[in-house]
Amino acid sequence: MTDATDHLVLFMPSGKRGRFATDTPVLEAARQLGVHVESVCGGRGICGRCQVEVQEGVFAKHGITSSNEHISAFGGNETRYAEKRDLKAGRRLSCSAKILGDLVIDIPQDAVVNAQVVRKDSDGRVIERNPAIQMCYVEVEEPDMHKPLGDLDRLLQAVEADWGFKNVTVDAYLYGQVQQILRKGNWKVTAAIHEPLHGGPATLVALYPGLKNEAYGIACDIGSTTIAMHLSSLLSGRTLASSGASNPQIRFGEDLMSRVSYVMMNPDGREGMTKAVREALNELIDKVCAQGEVDRADILDAVFVGNPIMHHLFLGIDPTELGGAPFALAVSGAVNVKSSEIGLPLNPGARVYMLPCIAGHVGADAAAATLTEGPHRQDEMMLLVDVGTNAEIVLGNSSRTVAASSPTGPAFEGAEISCGQRAAPGAIERIRINPETLEPRYRVIGIEPWSDEPGFDEAAAKVGVTGVCGSGIIEIIAEMYLAGIITEDGVINGDLAARSPRIIGNGRTFSYLLRDGEQRLMVTQNDVRAIQLAKAALYAGIKLLMDKQGIDHVDRIGLAGAFGSFIDPKYALVLGLVPDCDLERVKAVGNAAGTGARMALLNRSHRREIEATVTRIEKIETALESKFQDHFVNAMALPNKIDAFPRLAEVVKLPERSMDTAAADGVEPGAARRRGGRRNRS
Amino acid sequence: MTDATDHLVLFMPSGKRGRFATDTPVLEAARQLGVHVESVCGGRGICGRCQVEVQEGVFAKHGITSSNEHISAFGGNETRYAEKRDLKAGRRLSCSAKILGDLVIDIPQDAVVNAQVVRKDSDGRVIERNPAIQMCYVEVEEPDMHKPLGDLDRLLQAVEADWGFKNVTVDAYLYGQVQQILRKGNWKVTAAIHEPLHGGPATLVALYPGLKNEAYGIACDIGSTTIAMHLSSLLSGRTLASSGASNPQIRFGEDLMSRVSYVMMNPDGREGMTKAVREALNELIDKVCAQGEVDRADILDAVFVGNPIMHHLFLGIDPTELGGAPFALAVSGAVNVKSSEIGLPLNPGARVYMLPCIAGHVGADAAAATLTEGPHRQDEMMLLVDVGTNAEIVLGNSSRTVAASSPTGPAFEGAEISCGQRAAPGAIERIRINPETLEPRYRVIGIEPWSDEPGFDEAAAKVGVTGVCGSGIIEIIAEMYLAGIITEDGVINGDLAARSPRIIGNGRTFSYLLRDGEQRLMVTQNDVRAIQLAKAALYAGIKLLMDKQGIDHVDRIGLAGAFGSFIDPKYALVLGLVPDCDLERVKAVGNAAGTGARMALLNRSHRREIEATVTRIEKIETALESKFQDHFVNAMALPNKIDAFPRLAEVVKLPERSMDTAAADGVEPGAARRRGGRRNRS
Repeated sequence: MTDATDHLVLFMPSGKRGRFATDTPVLEAARQLGVHVESVCGGRGICGRCQVEVQEGVFAKHGITSSNEHISAFGGNETRYAEKRDLKAGRRLSCSAKILGDLVIDIPQDAVVNAQVVRKDSDGRVIERNPAIQMCYVEVEEPDMHKPLGDLDRLLQAVEADWGFKNVTVDAYLYGQVQQILRKGNWKVTAAIHEPLHGGPATLVALYPGLKNEAYGIACDIGSTTIAMHLSSLLSGRTLASSGASNPQIRFGEDLMSRVSYVMMNPDGREGMTKAVREALNELIDKVCAQGEVDRADILDAVFVGNPIMHHLFLGIDPTELGGAPFALAVSGAVNVKSSEIGLPLNPGARVYMLPCIAGHVGADAAAATLTEGPHRQDEMMLLVDVGTNAEIVLGNSSRTVAASSPTGPAFEGAEISCGQRAAPGAIERIRINPETLEPRYRVIGIEPWSDEPGFDEAAAKVGVTGVCGSGIIEIIAEMYLAGIITEDGVINGDLAARSPRIIGNGRTFSYLLRDGEQRLMVTQNDVRAIQLAKAALYAGIKLLMDKQGIDHVDRIGLAGAFGSFIDPKYALVLGLVPDCDLERVKAVGNAAGTGARMALLNRSHRREIEATVTRIEKIETALESKFQDHFVNAMALPNKIDAFPRLAEVVKLPERSMDTAAADGVEPGAARRRGGRRNRS
Repeated sequence: MTDATDHLVLFMPSGKRGRFATDTPVLEAARQLGVHVESVCGGRGICGRCQVEVQEGVFAKHGITSSNEHISAFGGNETRYAEKRDLKAGRRLSCSAKILGDLVIDIPQDAVVNAQVVRKDSDGRVIERNPAIQMCYVEVEEPDMHKPLGDLDRLLQAVEADWGFKNVTVDAYLYGQVQQILRKGNWKVTAAIHEPLHGGPATLVALYPGLKNEAYGIACDIGSTTIAMHLSSLLSGRTLASSGASNPQIRFGEDLMSRVSYVMMNPDGREGMTKAVREALNELIDKVCAQGEVDRADILDAVFVGNPIMHHLFLGIDPTELGGAPFALAVSGAVNVKSSEIGLPLNPGARVYMLPCIAGHVGADAAAATLTEGPHRQDEMMLLVDVGTNAEIVLGNSSRTVAASSPTGPAFEGAEISCGQRAAPGAIERIRINPETLEPRYRVIGIEPWSDEPGFDEAAAKVGVTGVCGSGIIEIIAEMYLAGIITEDGVINGDLAARSPRIIGNGRTFSYLLRDGEQRLMVTQNDVRAIQLAKAALYAGIKLLMDKQGIDHVDRIGLAGAFGSFIDPKYALVLGLVPDCDLERVKAVGNAAGTGARMALLNRSHRREIEATVTRIEKIETALESKFQDHFVNAMALPNKIDAFPRLAEVVKLPERSMDTAAADGVEPGAARRRGGRRNRS
């Protein structure tokens, strides 16, 4: 027998470790180290939530020889549990299993207790669980004439004794229900306790008779165009359903600024838009509940993110102030309300949390993306861009983070492009141009082969080829540049009309014919200019942040949002949308905002983390920075008039740079400044 | 010049004192000593709430020579304030006036700032103010693109900087209003901040543009028969209006038990009764607001007390469990909800506080009466009795307090008495019987002269003499005993029929004819028995508490409630309703429950005090005490079969005690026990 306090226990995946006396329950050891192991029943061996696995072997690096012989024998509560429920071989209940020697303990992330099918996990990310709402099973003393404490008061006594929550407050709706629930559960109940983030008493938000071994939450990104929602188990962390819908506010205006105008010009405009988005959210909740086979009343927590205008309209706040300088947010800090207070019928005690907004144009969605990608958690300098519409830009590392928004306008969504369209079947999304022949080949959404492969024409006849989507527009401009069709100043070279019938003159300028036929798709000089203006605005914003950081290159780039997911990093660099970077370190990060919402849903520490981070992020107002104009003009060139792209040049043969640095035709001084006036577009 | 830290300052009426440096503002000195001085503007000299007065003279006891020369000269903010508003001669603004020497400072309780007429103060009691809701005037930084903190966040920053409230949470309804209010007030606003009693962040519950120099609260005692409400200024403490109404639940049942039965037998019974009482409260709120010329939306806080069944029905809790053993309260602790959550439209952020209940039959009203009379604050042993219906009894001093209820039944309200009626015009309320002639003289509600004085008959012809009210019944039984008409065992002595025509035989027993004529008013043997049963139950309950305390007499007696206000302490003692006591120390304490509610409204420390006190009060369940039966049988006698009343005997000539201690005729063993079954009557 080793010394009583000599057992080294390492918990994975957290890597936290400590020494514990013989017979310490594994759950207790985890608690002492701050390792979150779920437990609803408080160690009674009935909920099965606290499953762990012993990793056997010699872990030389940690100096641990871990063995199933170093843990108490399977039995007691575990046997009883395994008889009634499914307990995988090798799994132990950490409330019952006791430490007898050195151990490496794995906390599996898939301890599925109920029979629910996990249909889809929104991404592969494992989020350590520590939800804001804790399910606490308690056994309450029966009423006693000698001790006339109320039923609720005895319940709260039990919650304090077993779970340590003191002075617990109570949601008003429960006063009228507590006696019936206690009697229905025969004095055994599960209390859902919400613990506030910044101190103070916790709150009893829901109460269930008997053992309630599940609780759910939703995480939702309210985009101006699309709403994405995930339904997750607060106990296992698993995502049970994910769904999306169009934002019905689109009928009030496609872009954000037109929605703000609608509010300003219609007396009931704000109410109408708030109602529309909440109705859409309600329908989405129905949808994910049906998919996940979850009762809506079992949803106890919800996290929402969105850009500032979506954030305000969702909360019922008039966004008019966001429509003009100084772009004052009504509230920038994290918002905590009850779902019932904002017209979302979930459990009557359900809570809603919204991440903080970073600035008037850098919203809770950008905060959520920051939480997901964590520039503030790493030493490398990371650039995080949500290439929306109004681009949200975060740049930083563990020592300093800065953020800004940039008025890219709607060109990237195809709105100012002659052949532009939404990403939908029939839209060209990939393009290559042969630099010799200037002939294009392309790929169309909904059609498997490329345009020069067998079967394309038949499929195209069926699906139609109707336009070019955002990622396609990036590629075609970049490919035109790489093929020499446009100069670094963005001028379509009319001399090439002699070489190819695809170069077509229209008055003073030229166009490139992408596809002929019933629906002619052309890239005009104006289209190129629109993309130049948009990318120059984005780049100038990024450049201002780089100036603040005092750096001339970034280590990593994350491209967030739907648009970011589809553009090819190479073309983003060729176009000079983002600064030079090792191509392998430029990544689409998907719906990082939605993932951040899910992190905040499943772990309250992430709420604390992002709230603290946002207060430290320095906000740059691009409109107030005198250098914005210079950066903007330089960024009109492809990829940039003065910034070099050496890392890109290692993998892509860039055209020779011309010595002529004159302002490009058609870009008048002041174009950048004027864009400031439409910073809220889309 | 004296030493810089050498000025002794004494604040009255609190008596707190300390030494302060020259130039310390008086308000600051008060804050440091924990002396509550109201201030809405935070020391800017504009609200006028922080008025004080210098007491001039030599205060030898305190070693202070106080003089107006020991305070800075009147001027600056004070002059500006006095030009615009009324500032009484001698009054100083403590935020502006600075300490220059030793001072005795009086904090007046009548610093009326607005022109409101104070119509009525519910009693003479001065309650030190420290309300749960504080009005905090702040000046908020305007939005700045360089520091994109939200409007609300900057407001909360100002509240923290000027008032010290950290991590303030926000009532959800304010999110949509904050921007408009800030702009309307030109960035000067008054925040109403609610500070929780048991730690944790305070909450912003209301927000007003500019300086909001008033806030109101209501204090209400919901009796089973009558509802009493006071409207008070949270800032000055003054009561602006008081009003009362019948409890409309009477239509569901006169006494409490019949209301519980109604709930049990009617599916919507609970909803109906909750609705009825809330409607009545709403009407009363309208009434006190009209009287006090106060806008209902300016009511920010409300305190309610009531017996357990009223408490539960008001909160929307089914009281069925209170209808039978073990008489389980749904909640016994103090209740904190928003007024909007219980259907009382006040300010949308208004809070509601209910005092704790002591036990299943000793409610928040008894707790409030305890708070008012404070047996727990004194060394003397005080008995506090609400001689209702179900009597609530508290007995204690600063070292120990015990409480119980006793099933007195409705006799004291006249319900089981042949000539009984409510206290209303036409009811006999005072009676004297001439021991020689056995002739009565009496006084009737609504008639000024006594029955043997000129003018009585004319008035009686108009008003009518229709019955005897509760206090009259006590007096007539006591006077009959003193006159020898009834024996100490409660038997009407038939031998006296020979001496007086007022003694009339009916079969085996006799009656006393109180008034002849159109409406004959008799006191029958059954009437005497009913009062004996009621008073014996009350006395037995008191006696159990005295046993617990190990005492044979009490130092003081407080008779609470409407009934307690009208009975003559002497007759209560003659009858043996309460134990022997110095007559001068038996006092009616009025609506002590309503006063307690007002104390909790105006001073949050009183909430803390009563919550702590109630947890320490020992609850005695009379039905479980074996000695209850013995005490009850002994208490059937007048004043008591075994307990002496020596202090009473000093002022009242009591009849000789008979040696015969046999059980009185008609009181079968078990009568007391059976009464236990109707402990919830009325």
